[in-house]
Amino acid sequence: MRAANRLSASEAARLLQRRELSAEQLMRDCLAHIEAREPEVRAFVQLDAASALAQARALDAGPVRGPLHGLPLAVKDIFDTADLPTECGSPIFAGNRPRVDAAAVALCREAGAIVVGKTVTTELANMTAGITRNPFNPAHSPGGSSSGSAAAVADFMVPLSLGTQTAGSIIRPAACCGIVGIKPSFGRVPRAGVKPNADSMDTVGGFGRTVADAALLASVLTGDARLRETPLPESLRIGLAPGPDWAQAEDDVTDCWERTARALAAVAVRCEDAALPSDFADVAAVQSAIQAAETAQALAFEHLWHRARLSEALVALLDRGRNVDALTLAALRARTERWRREIDGLFERHDVLLAPSAVDEAPEGLQFTGDPVFCRPWSLLGLPCVHLPMGTGSSGLPVGLQLVGRLGDDHRLMAAAQWVMQRLG
Amino acid sequence: MRAANRLSASEAARLLQRRELSAEQLMRDCLAHIEAREPEVRAFVQLDAASALAQARALDAGPVRGPLHGLPLAVKDIFDTADLPTECGSPIFAGNRPRVDAAAVALCREAGAIVVGKTVTTELANMTAGITRNPFNPAHSPGGSSSGSAAAVADFMVPLSLGTQTAGSIIRPAACCGIVGIKPSFGRVPRAGVKPNADSMDTVGGFGRTVADAALLASVLTGDARLRETPLPESLRIGLAPGPDWAQAEDDVTDCWERTARALAAVAVRCEDAALPSDFADVAAVQSAIQAAETAQALAFEHLWHRARLSEALVALLDRGRNVDALTLAALRARTERWRREIDGLFERHDVLLAPSAVDEAPEGLQFTGDPVFCRPWSLLGLPCVHLPMGTGSSGLPVGLQLVGRLGDDHRLMAAAQWVMQRLG
Repeated sequence: MRAANRLSASEAARLLQRRELSAEQLMRDCLAHIEAREPEVRAFVQLDAASALAQARALDAGPVRGPLHGLPLAVKDIFDTADLPTECGSPIFAGNRPRVDAAAVALCREAGAIVVGKTVTTELANMTAGITRNPFNPAHSPGGSSSGSAAAVADFMVPLSLGTQTAGSIIRPAACCGIVGIKPSFGRVPRAGVKPNADSMDTVGGFGRTVADAALLASVLTGDARLRETPLPESLRIGLAPGPDWAQAEDDVTDCWERTARALAAVAVRCEDAALPSDFADVAAVQSAIQAAETAQALAFEHLWHRARLSEALVALLDRGRNVDALTLAALRARTERWRREIDGLFERHDVLLAPSAVDEAPEGLQFTGDPVFCRPWSLLGLPCVHLPMGTGSSGLPVGLQLVGRLGDDHRLMAAAQWVMQRLG
Repeated sequence: MRAANRLSASEAARLLQRRELSAEQLMRDCLAHIEAREPEVRAFVQLDAASALAQARALDAGPVRGPLHGLPLAVKDIFDTADLPTECGSPIFAGNRPRVDAAAVALCREAGAIVVGKTVTTELANMTAGITRNPFNPAHSPGGSSSGSAAAVADFMVPLSLGTQTAGSIIRPAACCGIVGIKPSFGRVPRAGVKPNADSMDTVGGFGRTVADAALLASVLTGDARLRETPLPESLRIGLAPGPDWAQAEDDVTDCWERTARALAAVAVRCEDAALPSDFADVAAVQSAIQAAETAQALAFEHLWHRARLSEALVALLDRGRNVDALTLAALRARTERWRREIDGLFERHDVLLAPSAVDEAPEGLQFTGDPVFCRPWSLLGLPCVHLPMGTGSSGLPVGLQLVGRLGDDHRLMAAAQWVMQRLG
C-alpha cells in the first residue's frame, strides 16, 4: 500500500470516516515524509509532531468529528494559534504566543483537522521572501506569501493547508507549486486572529492537491456545505478574461492559455471573450495603491515603532501607502465600486471567467516570490478564485490558470472547476 | 482657572500646540479627576498614571507631534496595547498581553495622544454588561458596549476615547452619556488589533464632548484631515429617517425628535421625510441575523473551547449565529446590498439623515446596556453616524439624536453636525 500521505484529502477523509484508515497512520506517514523532505523544502517554521500524533490518537479513539476528521493541516504563520507561536515572518513577532486560535483554525479543528505546524510566510504576508523552496526544484521560489502552505501540500507533506490572499498570495503560490488554491469570496471566511494587511481585500483560503480537496476545506471555512455538495453543471459558459496586463505573460503561460481555451471552446456551451470594463487598464495600479494605503494603516504600529526591524521593501511599501491621500483613495474606491457592479453584470452571460494566475513558471532564486499582477483585479473586486494546475512549462515547473466566479457563488465556482478539470483530463 | 480636564479636546489641543498649556498639567488634572470619580463611575479596567505622566512630560520636552499632541486618550479594552493588558471584558483574556498596539491606537499615539488606560467593555463587545455606571446617575447604565470610553469622556476624566460599533456600541453609549460619538464610514479606520465581532460591520470610532472634538479624533483615525477642516455648509437638506422601529421610542425620545425636527425645519433649506426602502421593515432583524452569524464565526474558538467561560447570553447569541445557514445568510446579504444602493441614492436629495439613537434615556440598573435597534440599520449599511446630545429627558438623563451620512462623506457629515449644533444652540 502506498504511503497514506499520498492520498488526496477527499480520499483520506472517506477512509478515515469509515475507519479504514486511522488518523494516527495518516499522521505518521505525513510526519515521516516531512522529516525526509523538510531539510530541502523548508515549509515549516513550527512543527509539533508529538502533539499532532497525540491528537490523531485521540480522534481515532472518539467519534467522527466532522468533514476534516483526522486530516493533517498546515497553517500559515500569520494565523494565531493558542498552542504554537505565531511569528508572522517578522522578528517583531519572534516568540509571540497568542491567547486564542484564529477563527479559521478553530473551525478546521472543530471539523476534525489536526494542526501539524505553522508554515513559512513572507514578512507579514507581504513581498519579502521566506526560506521555503519550490518542491519541484529547490532553486526556485514556491511563490508567496503563503509559501510554506503551498509547498507543504505540493510536496505531499500534508493534504491541506491554510493561506491568505490580499493581492495574489494564494493563487500565485498554488500556480508555482502546481496545486489547487482557493480564495473564497471576500467576507465569507472569518479573519479574526489573522494578521491584517489590507482590510478591504484580505481573504482566508487554502490549498489542496485536487479541486475536491480545496472545496472540502473551503466548505468548512465558509460554513457552506454547498461547496462540497454542488453537482457538476451540464456545461459551462466561460468568459475569457486575460485582462489588461496580459502582455506580461511569458510563453509558457500563453501556451497554456491557448491550449486550454481551445480545449474548453470544444466542450463548453460558450467560450468567448468577456467584456471587461472600458477603463480597466490600470486595475492593477488601483489595487496596488489601495493595498498599500490600507496596509500602511493596518501596520501603523510596526511602521512607526519598529521600522528598523522591517525589510526595506516593506518600509518602502508602507511609506508609499502613507502618501496616498484621502481624496485619491476615495476616488480609487469609487472606481472599484463601479467595477464591482460592472463585472457582476458579466456573470449574467458567463458562469465563470478564465484568467491567468502568474506571469511565468516559478521564479528562479528564493529572493523574489513573483509578480501578483494577474491576481490583483480579482482580489480588488473580492471575487472567488481557484487556481487549476495544468501541467508543466519549459523548465519543468508547474503552469496553470485560474477560474474566477461571481461574488458569493463559490459553490458554483468549485463545481465549474471540477467540470473543467474533468474535461481537460 | 478651571481645571484643564474641563477643556474640550479642541480647546486643549490649541493651548497645547501654542505651549500655553503643558501636557503634564492637563494629564495631572485628568488623573486627579479620575482618582476622585473612578470609585463611583468605574470607567477603567487598567490605568497607568505614572506612565501617562512620563509620556506627558516627554511630549512637553519635544516638538509638537500632531493634531492630538498631549491629549489624554482612553481606549476600549478590546484594542490591543503593547504596554497594557487587553482583556476584552472576558475571563478568557485575563492578563492577555498583546505584542503590538492596535493600528488605531498607534495612529493616535503618532498624532501625540497619550493613552491613560483601558476602559470597560461589555463581554467581548457584546451585550453582557461591565461594571461602569452612568456619570449622570450611578444607578443607570452608561450604555454599551463601549461603556467605559463613553463614561470617561462624559465625566471629564479624559477629553477623547476610542470605541467600536457593530450594532450600536458607539452611538448608544454616547446617547446614554450625553456626549458626541462618531462611527466613521465602514472600512475607513484600520481594525488591526481590535477584537473582531461581525466582520462586515465592526467599525472603530470614538467619543468627544463636542462635534469638533469627535471630528478631530476621527480625522486622525481615518487619516483624512477634511474631517476637521471642512467648512460648515450654508444650509442643509435634511432627511427625516425615524425608521421602521420608531414605535419603540419612548416619550423622552419622541419629544426630543419633534422638538428637533421642528427647529431644523425652521432653519434648513429642506427638512422632509426620507423615502426608505419599501421592504425596510425588518432591517433590524436582518442586521441582527448577519451580526449573529458573523460573530459566531469570529468567536469560533471561544464558542467551541471556552463555552463555560462565556455568559449565557453570549452563548445563546453564538448558538443562534451558528444556526443561520449559508443560503439564508446569502439572501440577507443580497438584500443588504440592494438597500445600500437604494439608500445611497437618497443622498442625492438629502445631505444627511436624522435618526434616533436610543429608544429611551439610559436604562436603570447596570445589567442591561440598552437596545441598539435604532442603530442597526446604519451599522448594517456601513454609513457614518454621529450622535448629538440634545439636553435631558424626564429622568434628568441625556437624550439626543444621530445624523447619518453618505458612505465616505464623513467630512460632510461632521460639518453638517456642527451646523445642526449651532442652530439648535
